[in-house]
Amino acid sequence: MTDSATTESSVPAGSAASGRRARGGGGAARRAERTSVSYESARFIERNVPNLDVLNEEALKIIERNAETVLEEIGVNFVENPAALELWREAGADVRGERVHIPRGLARQLCATAPSSFVQHARNPERNVEIGGRNLVLAPVYGPPFVRDEAGGRRYATIEDFRNFVRLGYMSKWLHHSGGTVCEPTDIAVNKRHLDMLHAHMTLSDKPFMGSVTEPSRAQDSVDMAGILFGKDFVQANTVMTSLININSPLTFDGVMMGALEVYARNNQASIVSPFIVGGAMAPTTVAGTLTQVLAEILAGVAYSQLVRQGAPVIAGAFVTSIDMNSGAPTFGTPEASLVTYGMGQLVRRLGLPYRSAGAFCGSKLPDAQAAYETANSLNMGLLSGVNFMLHACGWLEGGLVASFEKFVMDADQLGMLHQLARGVDMTENGQAMDAIREVGPGGHYLGCAHTQANFKSAFWRTELLDYKPFETWDEEGARDTRQLASARVRKLLDSYREPILDPAVRQALDAYVAEKKAGMPDAFG
Amino acid sequence: MTDSATTESSVPAGSAASGRRARGGGGAARRAERTSVSYESARFIERNVPNLDVLNEEALKIIERNAETVLEEIGVNFVENPAALELWREAGADVRGERVHIPRGLARQLCATAPSSFVQHARNPERNVEIGGRNLVLAPVYGPPFVRDEAGGRRYATIEDFRNFVRLGYMSKWLHHSGGTVCEPTDIAVNKRHLDMLHAHMTLSDKPFMGSVTEPSRAQDSVDMAGILFGKDFVQANTVMTSLININSPLTFDGVMMGALEVYARNNQASIVSPFIVGGAMAPTTVAGTLTQVLAEILAGVAYSQLVRQGAPVIAGAFVTSIDMNSGAPTFGTPEASLVTYGMGQLVRRLGLPYRSAGAFCGSKLPDAQAAYETANSLNMGLLSGVNFMLHACGWLEGGLVASFEKFVMDADQLGMLHQLARGVDMTENGQAMDAIREVGPGGHYLGCAHTQANFKSAFWRTELLDYKPFETWDEEGARDTRQLASARVRKLLDSYREPILDPAVRQALDAYVAEKKAGMPDAFG
Repeated sequence: MTDSATTESSVPAGSAASGRRARGGGGAARRAERTSVSYESARFIERNVPNLDVLNEEALKIIERNAETVLEEIGVNFVENPAALELWREAGADVRGERVHIPRGLARQLCATAPSSFVQHARNPERNVEIGGRNLVLAPVYGPPFVRDEAGGRRYATIEDFRNFVRLGYMSKWLHHSGGTVCEPTDIAVNKRHLDMLHAHMTLSDKPFMGSVTEPSRAQDSVDMAGILFGKDFVQANTVMTSLININSPLTFDGVMMGALEVYARNNQASIVSPFIVGGAMAPTTVAGTLTQVLAEILAGVAYSQLVRQGAPVIAGAFVTSIDMNSGAPTFGTPEASLVTYGMGQLVRRLGLPYRSAGAFCGSKLPDAQAAYETANSLNMGLLSGVNFMLHACGWLEGGLVASFEKFVMDADQLGMLHQLARGVDMTENGQAMDAIREVGPGGHYLGCAHTQANFKSAFWRTELLDYKPFETWDEEGARDTRQLASARVRKLLDSYREPILDPAVRQALDAYVAEKKAGMPDAFG
Repeated sequence: MTDSATTESSVPAGSAASGRRARGGGGAARRAERTSVSYESARFIERNVPNLDVLNEEALKIIERNAETVLEEIGVNFVENPAALELWREAGADVRGERVHIPRGLARQLCATAPSSFVQHARNPERNVEIGGRNLVLAPVYGPPFVRDEAGGRRYATIEDFRNFVRLGYMSKWLHHSGGTVCEPTDIAVNKRHLDMLHAHMTLSDKPFMGSVTEPSRAQDSVDMAGILFGKDFVQANTVMTSLININSPLTFDGVMMGALEVYARNNQASIVSPFIVGGAMAPTTVAGTLTQVLAEILAGVAYSQLVRQGAPVIAGAFVTSIDMNSGAPTFGTPEASLVTYGMGQLVRRLGLPYRSAGAFCGSKLPDAQAAYETANSLNMGLLSGVNFMLHACGWLEGGLVASFEKFVMDADQLGMLHQLARGVDMTENGQAMDAIREVGPGGHYLGCAHTQANFKSAFWRTELLDYKPFETWDEEGARDTRQLASARVRKLLDSYREPILDPAVRQALDAYVAEKKAGMPDAFG
């Protein structure tokens, strides 16, 4: 009984462990296992460095008080969602039309039932991630309709591009999560592409992934397909998807997005409740004003998830950029966005919720120096602001319009840097290295000393991409810039890709689900 | 008497204010003034955000205790400098040969007489900088023998390159300091180039600058030329130069560098006492071990400056990179260097000294994405580690072998970001923006609201370089990457450059000093 319960609830049906146990298709599974390649994948980051707190206690209290004022006096709109209005009314809110006025303190009280941390399971249990606490989980870019690479330039994304990004994510040591809509497969009908995207995440990678949010029925498809992969009972007992629910800032929750949230919450799956804000357009131009509005939106959205199902796992998100007041374009890696991200981290931690923010953000059209400055500003801020789930951690280009293959591997390499920085300072005797200092002495050299010999392999973060060669060597090899080095790395990785093993019966069931669903629908575009 | 004292001590002789008062050359001065152009220059950064503290109290105490152990038991070498050994002996150190064993606590006690903050005067008093406290002063790259630009590629630096960098620094809004050896003018003899470099800083810019350190006699030339520019009495009463004194790590102080320090300290001029460390070669591979050694070196070096002249202004420096264990090349923007920089900031603040570290560090051969990632990692760390004086804040390329014109303006633009981030969060009523949130309400738009109209001009940091145009516009304009945009900006800036006004009598005296000194020396190269 205990054994069986353990098998049901802690080892997903589609995992290698369960696959080996399966009676049917054992030969194919063994063949798959023999030809599979294991890619090294780092465990999610557990920080041993502090967060940067830009707000003092007084500032935090002012913003928290102002956010409650916003909820009570101004209120939030729940659009085209009578059931949500009813839930709010029952909870004690003052509902007028679609406007919900939430009495001071009610939203915060409702948020208290959301877990401060939760495990998102992967079909390979070694890839499970724990989202919350001092942890940081990294996931790739989400949403671009275009892709770009050196060979093909900028073009509409296809399902093959999508699959290649999933493959790259699977092979990236520093990426913990396969993400969701890593690009929009525009060659597949809008009403069908979620099926192909989920199928790709489930079969081409064994890392955790996100579900569809564009229609409640697509969220249900996501839950159903997860049921095939993990087993239905496992899905009801464990969180296997984290999905992105955007708030329409300012202060508006639309019926479609909330419908998807409702599906996920009822099925014990996680949602990121996240405003998407271009400061100056969807929020005030000031940092404190933006923090106030974002906090109000998070309070209302997370509280609503708990009205749908008490204890449903949820992440408080903040996607914030500022606007270029000349062109109206969103800008990235800017200091105002950093201050909001730092401040929001403090406010979310006081709510006791996991925090989603930051990413490899940039406005540049190319994976050039602008892209890298903006991205590095944002990645550093993400680590130091206490983010627990970082979507868009690699591959983001051109304000999110483009998923870049080169930038994907460039950013993914930088993510290794975050892992090492998060380790903090080793204060063991070996870390203190007094023996080395004694051995070498004034005027000596450390390269040959015993301490260096014992430590050099693990002492420093190593890039798998960047160039440190002597000038002459680099010049002879073609004087390549980072884009060219990245382009070669993309090709090399994709050429060497091998699928992770999957129980053939599960694979067939997934194929059949997608085929059957597609057969029942006419194509819809746009 | 009071008026005259004020004139002598607070307005440098070569300043515009004193120039207008001068009897001789008034006509030329007025002509110069009429044709001069004023470039906007930001005040040095005064931080309103906290530092990131990666070491706890216990770790700090362990490292401080270990550093004292290093000084007492291992000791430091003062090479070819009998006078220094005598000073140490008199101060109570145990001197054996050139090895100085400093009793526990002595160095720290000697460091206490160094000022925690000092003003470095510029010939334009509006450009004075205060180095210490919560401030951050930004200075350009120092030392590269090569330059690179898009048009001319990589080549040995000349005095004309040097002058162009000084011009760019003068025109950079976010750079507070003209620096020192912004590149090595290799077309001028080694024993003469300091004269041309100082002449360029003094005439082509009105920002503060650094003196020569390659020989004690060249340090004396720097003091003498500063005497012409500022007035001799002014120089003795005020700090007008900050110069870079490197320690030969591990634990060695050579006679030439210390000789330069002695000249500056005796003349009340500031020195940066700074180890130059490639971790794994000149220090242990571990962060805590490196911190221990750097702290010991700083304690010994700063203490020595106070033995030369109690109260001499001095900055505790830490230039730390790690090594690529494959190629032996130094690496930049790495997490290990960041941890050392954060930790050293804490240790230096406990010593009560100004702190020099960080910079626009990168190992890349080109101003590409690698350069920008590494640089942004380092600049962000510089701001958050409490650095007071950041040398190399723009223009650094290829591990410091190359000063890049394009990267100079790229980095200089990013420095604006640091200014805005350092401002922290405005918690005034305008900052809280509750009126805006009320006015706009759920589903509204902030672009047109009164609060946005009142704030948009100053709300967000604005780049003067990066691209935020719509894709189609950018594409039509040539699809330029950051290097190309920067190249255009370099040309535009240099084409529009105008010299700051300078009293013609002072200019003539500087010209004469340089000519006379050069005439008395044969050329020496290498």
